[in-house]
Amino acid sequence: MKFQLLKGMRDLTPEQAMKKQKVIGVIRSVFERYGFAPIETPALESFDMLSMKEGGDAIRREIYNFRDQGNREIGLRFDLTVPLARFMSNNPNLPKPFKRCAIGDVWRYDNPQAARWRQFTQADIDTIGSPSVMADAECVAAVIDALERVGLKDFKVRVNNRKLLENVLIGCGVNKERIFSVFRVIDKMDKIGKNGVDEELKKLGIDAGRIFSFLGKDISQLEKFQGCDELEEFSGAMESFGMKDRIKIDLALVRGLEYYTGNVFEILSSLSVSIGGGGRYDKMMAAYGAGDFPAVGISIGIDRLLELLPDDGKKTPAKVFIATIGDVQKEALSIASGLRKGGISTVAELIGRNIKKQLEYADSLKIPYVIVIGPDEVGKKTAKVRNMETRKEEDVAFADLPKYLG
Amino acid sequence: MKFQLLKGMRDLTPEQAMKKQKVIGVIRSVFERYGFAPIETPALESFDMLSMKEGGDAIRREIYNFRDQGNREIGLRFDLTVPLARFMSNNPNLPKPFKRCAIGDVWRYDNPQAARWRQFTQADIDTIGSPSVMADAECVAAVIDALERVGLKDFKVRVNNRKLLENVLIGCGVNKERIFSVFRVIDKMDKIGKNGVDEELKKLGIDAGRIFSFLGKDISQLEKFQGCDELEEFSGAMESFGMKDRIKIDLALVRGLEYYTGNVFEILSSLSVSIGGGGRYDKMMAAYGAGDFPAVGISIGIDRLLELLPDDGKKTPAKVFIATIGDVQKEALSIASGLRKGGISTVAELIGRNIKKQLEYADSLKIPYVIVIGPDEVGKKTAKVRNMETRKEEDVAFADLPKYLG
Repeated sequence: MKFQLLKGMRDLTPEQAMKKQKVIGVIRSVFERYGFAPIETPALESFDMLSMKEGGDAIRREIYNFRDQGNREIGLRFDLTVPLARFMSNNPNLPKPFKRCAIGDVWRYDNPQAARWRQFTQADIDTIGSPSVMADAECVAAVIDALERVGLKDFKVRVNNRKLLENVLIGCGVNKERIFSVFRVIDKMDKIGKNGVDEELKKLGIDAGRIFSFLGKDISQLEKFQGCDELEEFSGAMESFGMKDRIKIDLALVRGLEYYTGNVFEILSSLSVSIGGGGRYDKMMAAYGAGDFPAVGISIGIDRLLELLPDDGKKTPAKVFIATIGDVQKEALSIASGLRKGGISTVAELIGRNIKKQLEYADSLKIPYVIVIGPDEVGKKTAKVRNMETRKEEDVAFADLPKYLG
Repeated sequence: MKFQLLKGMRDLTPEQAMKKQKVIGVIRSVFERYGFAPIETPALESFDMLSMKEGGDAIRREIYNFRDQGNREIGLRFDLTVPLARFMSNNPNLPKPFKRCAIGDVWRYDNPQAARWRQFTQADIDTIGSPSVMADAECVAAVIDALERVGLKDFKVRVNNRKLLENVLIGCGVNKERIFSVFRVIDKMDKIGKNGVDEELKKLGIDAGRIFSFLGKDISQLEKFQGCDELEEFSGAMESFGMKDRIKIDLALVRGLEYYTGNVFEILSSLSVSIGGGGRYDKMMAAYGAGDFPAVGISIGIDRLLELLPDDGKKTPAKVFIATIGDVQKEALSIASGLRKGGISTVAELIGRNIKKQLEYADSLKIPYVIVIGPDEVGKKTAKVRNMETRKEEDVAFADLPKYLG
């Protein structure tokens, strides 16, 4: 009987999983240096909670939702921000600002596409309870720091401000009620191009030319609009962090979600792949009963990021394989035990195959060193150590193995 | 609008989440030293796959299963072993033995009890493709090593062998068809006591006295029974690992699952709480179409383990809080940036509160050091550093802060 993965789901092999864990380890430690404290929330939440923000029916088609055996309507979380709001409302006494980090899986009933899975991993940081643009800058700085440390080159963070964009659009004659419709059209710029946006705005009866001329301006020309000060302050803070080169102010950046209220961010690779983003959302905590706390956050899409980073080709954590000739398994285990105590990842032969098969096994896993022991080696308490890359062998006393291989 | 957690679900606060991550980090690194390579499989699997092992209807009541929008019957994984079998069948070319580690969440629609949640975390290691008792011993050794390194005291691993128990029962006159019924009764020993087992066996028309006399014997008295050799070999291997003291052979140990075929293990705290277990399962891979590979594995229940370990009381990763007096936020960010580059977790004031409130905040998060800067300190490029435990203050030049606090 053979079973398959569900559509849109995937496994990670050791090669992929080790790469992912290494990247997450670096990101987590950077986030911790910025003082973001981890929390965990469950994968399952009530559907009422999950659907409040965006309205029930649209979200119902986009997430995994169902009734459990107790007939509760529940669903799998589709991001880490909505559960954060629920968490804050259930833990009202946490000291503010609350700087939280969450790295975890989320699920969406999307149509699977390239590099788009129905389960994926996000790494989020959010600061709840500070209205300061410094908090915005700190979130973005932490993400830039993390991405640099995992070895990503040539990425930028696009930045805009919702208030500024709204006020510019109003200045261009867009009615306040139609702001979000226009937002949605401008948001498609990357997909449908300037001509496409032009056409769609025309359909709404809006003069795209005027809007385009504003979107191309430098922020210094827009200082009369509310929101521009927040962008400028953000820019100054990024300079204090020594990270101004990573920032690109782009008045055409919208970011899909309606809940943003101030600066918004999008992390863009050199290939123009979005690796994540975020922004300020000052109204959401209150909407979830978590108190009237301003908030800002940013999220890295781990799966997208991993595709942009080179593979190191490791197939096992093991550095050493102990091959055995004859009945020396106990000695092999005892040598393995000593190496492991010295912090060296070790695999010992567990089948008793012939030596050729054992060496092929070590090779197939790309284990860098092989120790060969048989009755002779056990008698002399000295093993042959083979460097699998250079194919050179050396005799090493059992007692010296941890030092030699460490 | 306030939303609650679903029944049986819980959040982890920073205090709990940091403890959990620390423990998982140690366990993962020990597992890696033994050469177990991580894999990841998705939370959702087809219901056919999840239910094959135990039969559809019983499992339907115990897991989260539902139909997705494509009308597929799917469910959340309830352990990490069944998905491993599916993974092996989909990745037939992995070099064997395949030593895999998986740390992840699983879901069960249990009745919530103390320390029993509907989502919990397991840390598993399994070796696929070795029939050797050495592989059994290595799994148990890795778990003992990991538990010792996370600081658990006074635990034991109970060990038994399925073949031995089966043969002893047959020797006591139990019919082969009734072996599993008797297994299930003996398995309840901890819950219902010897008297309870006695009564239930009587109901099955079985002479409990004879069985009890065998279960109390030393293995040296049972050498004529098949399976005893595997227990003795296991015991010898644990001696090679220097871990024989952690092992307790207990002929009354059953372990619930029917798929075990050889040695079985249960990790027991000094309070007789089960923290996990496992065993050899030589038939399961073939049943899932993964080839005729013998297998052995063991699992740690992370949530149970965490309850047995002391809390360290940390509420944030931050070691340093930078308090500001007046308009010195940019200088605060620049000092924070320097400390973070030096690997010191730092939080800077992000609201501009009065100094008393800022110190209360640092205190409430138990941050060990506070740096106070105002216009004077910025002028002299020297900050006051307060040790929050001793309440002593010292003046430190800005440039020396990373060294002083490192």
